[in-house]
Amino acid sequence: MQQLAVDLGERTYPIYIGPGLLAQPELYERHRGSGQLLVVTNDRVAPLYLDQVVAALGDPETLVLPDGEGQKTLARTEQVLDRLLRAGFGRDGTLVALGGGVIGDLAGFAAAIYQRGIDFIQVPTTLLAQVDSSVGGKTGVNHPLGKNMIGAFHQPKAVIADTDVLATLPDRELSAGLAEIIKYGLIRDLPFLEWLEANMDGLRAREPALLTEAIARSCRNKAEVVAADEREGGVRALLNLGHTFGHAIEAGLGYGEWLHGEAVGAGMCMAADMSVRLGWLGEADRARAVHLIERAGLPTRPPSGLTPDRMRELMARDKKVVAGELRLVLLRALGEAVVTGDFEPDALSRTLAENARPE
Amino acid sequence: MQQLAVDLGERTYPIYIGPGLLAQPELYERHRGSGQLLVVTNDRVAPLYLDQVVAALGDPETLVLPDGEGQKTLARTEQVLDRLLRAGFGRDGTLVALGGGVIGDLAGFAAAIYQRGIDFIQVPTTLLAQVDSSVGGKTGVNHPLGKNMIGAFHQPKAVIADTDVLATLPDRELSAGLAEIIKYGLIRDLPFLEWLEANMDGLRAREPALLTEAIARSCRNKAEVVAADEREGGVRALLNLGHTFGHAIEAGLGYGEWLHGEAVGAGMCMAADMSVRLGWLGEADRARAVHLIERAGLPTRPPSGLTPDRMRELMARDKKVVAGELRLVLLRALGEAVVTGDFEPDALSRTLAENARPE
Repeated sequence: MQQLAVDLGERTYPIYIGPGLLAQPELYERHRGSGQLLVVTNDRVAPLYLDQVVAALGDPETLVLPDGEGQKTLARTEQVLDRLLRAGFGRDGTLVALGGGVIGDLAGFAAAIYQRGIDFIQVPTTLLAQVDSSVGGKTGVNHPLGKNMIGAFHQPKAVIADTDVLATLPDRELSAGLAEIIKYGLIRDLPFLEWLEANMDGLRAREPALLTEAIARSCRNKAEVVAADEREGGVRALLNLGHTFGHAIEAGLGYGEWLHGEAVGAGMCMAADMSVRLGWLGEADRARAVHLIERAGLPTRPPSGLTPDRMRELMARDKKVVAGELRLVLLRALGEAVVTGDFEPDALSRTLAENARPE
Repeated sequence: MQQLAVDLGERTYPIYIGPGLLAQPELYERHRGSGQLLVVTNDRVAPLYLDQVVAALGDPETLVLPDGEGQKTLARTEQVLDRLLRAGFGRDGTLVALGGGVIGDLAGFAAAIYQRGIDFIQVPTTLLAQVDSSVGGKTGVNHPLGKNMIGAFHQPKAVIADTDVLATLPDRELSAGLAEIIKYGLIRDLPFLEWLEANMDGLRAREPALLTEAIARSCRNKAEVVAADEREGGVRALLNLGHTFGHAIEAGLGYGEWLHGEAVGAGMCMAADMSVRLGWLGEADRARAVHLIERAGLPTRPPSGLTPDRMRELMARDKKVVAGELRLVLLRALGEAVVTGDFEPDALSRTLAENARPE
């Protein structure tokens, strides 16, 4: 087992990474409050892992929601709150989120607003959730008019990332998690990027020791960024490499067509392409990044049918647009990203024209 | 105008108190974000003050909700969020809450969870909201199973307490505000309690200078307590003097029958009574407190029909019950309160038997 701390002063919490962790009672025992427990999960994860978690916790309340991004709503949050109230949870209660990003975000948000905040423990069951939503304290739900538009910052008491659960993860979801892992290498950790180049085949073969190492290094990178910028004023924006392009792809296709990580994979390739056009990144480095993304099983271009104009229109809706200025995360080098709104507009036009496929 | 700061590190904000403030553009200008503005108010306040606020703000969006505690729901919060999204508010938007405690709590909660938190400015229009909810950062809504069960801590950027609006406040609501004002004297500020004894008639006659002074001293007291305990672990519990008895009265009658401040008035008399029975407070001091509460136009006993057994049952549901132990705020002296679960149970029984009226 690897353990690392997300350093946030009095809200510092540990991430445990390794095989067989979700069935270990002592990990929960160490971090739960003194009151009742509620496990929130979905109907895809429940048949696989809920029994183990229930056995580890004794006799918790359980709530199984339908699976899917479409369930990440205020109405489902209310269902969790109703359950907490009906079961008489006090401020000493603890919520355990067993599932991927949707369950983590939704249950974390319910924990954030129940009696103005109760404890929660995250047990992420996808690679993406293990390396992304387990660090940062972002919780929330979607609104018909926008993703993650309703939410709160609320840090978990602990994250239990059990690598055994990745054995049952579909290939596409494994690749989607690898997209965010590659991202940490690209924005700030060249040695990690090189390690990923050396170990990508083993990661896709799901070798447990490699997965543990990749998750730990990803979480450490994210934790360092978040510790420096808990509420997202500055450096944290670097974590959005590929995301402005990626969100446009997701929105253009309709959410759920491509996985988030797939859209980010293609988005990172576009960010690298634009960085080359600005003269910031060498062509060989761009090709290296694209090759690694491809080896992770990810798309490297937007899907056909999204025109450059449509992409641009969707990008303008990005949350990072400040006072009408589109800001992008671009690469100065492999392992070094910058956030900027100060770029040649023509570079973006050419990146869109070359990558987006109208047919 | 008086001005004081609620000292919360980087979240420190000012409270402006005095006549004519809600129409002053510069107060808003100083504290609003760079983006759009939405004023949330209710249909009782809107005809009286919305035009002035709109004029001061230029051309803000406005949303008028129905008046009443029954509107303090997650569904109404969603209506505010919908409006923010439809109008395209970004993270640089600002919400202005124009109204009493319900509007402040609800709009503050919407601001807390819109895109994980946007700025808000409170313009409280009741005496209670000016001295209570304007300090502390508590926001939230009710659930059918309990008051304020859903919420978040979210500090405003500024509070604009215009004393002119108190001219249109019904007498009962003025008295309800005075209950919380008296509370600050009782729990921690004997000189303020003496000042209230000297000026109660002038306060009920709504003399502007006296109201300004009473609001400022109340906010200063609450701000000191909150600064010492922002998230309610310790000393902040003292602010609940009279509230456990009071909540039982409100719940027993059905919320809305008595105003919150009226129930707190009677509750503080019961806390003083129990403090005497424990030998902590002299009888003369109790009588002094009760007399002041009476002069404020408040009830000093629970309403008829609430039996001692029913009161006790309702008190056991209090949020402050920890591990089955009922904790109460009691008086050691005038101007000095303690929170304790360590009291003779018989003292509570006798206080209930003597004060609650079964007929």
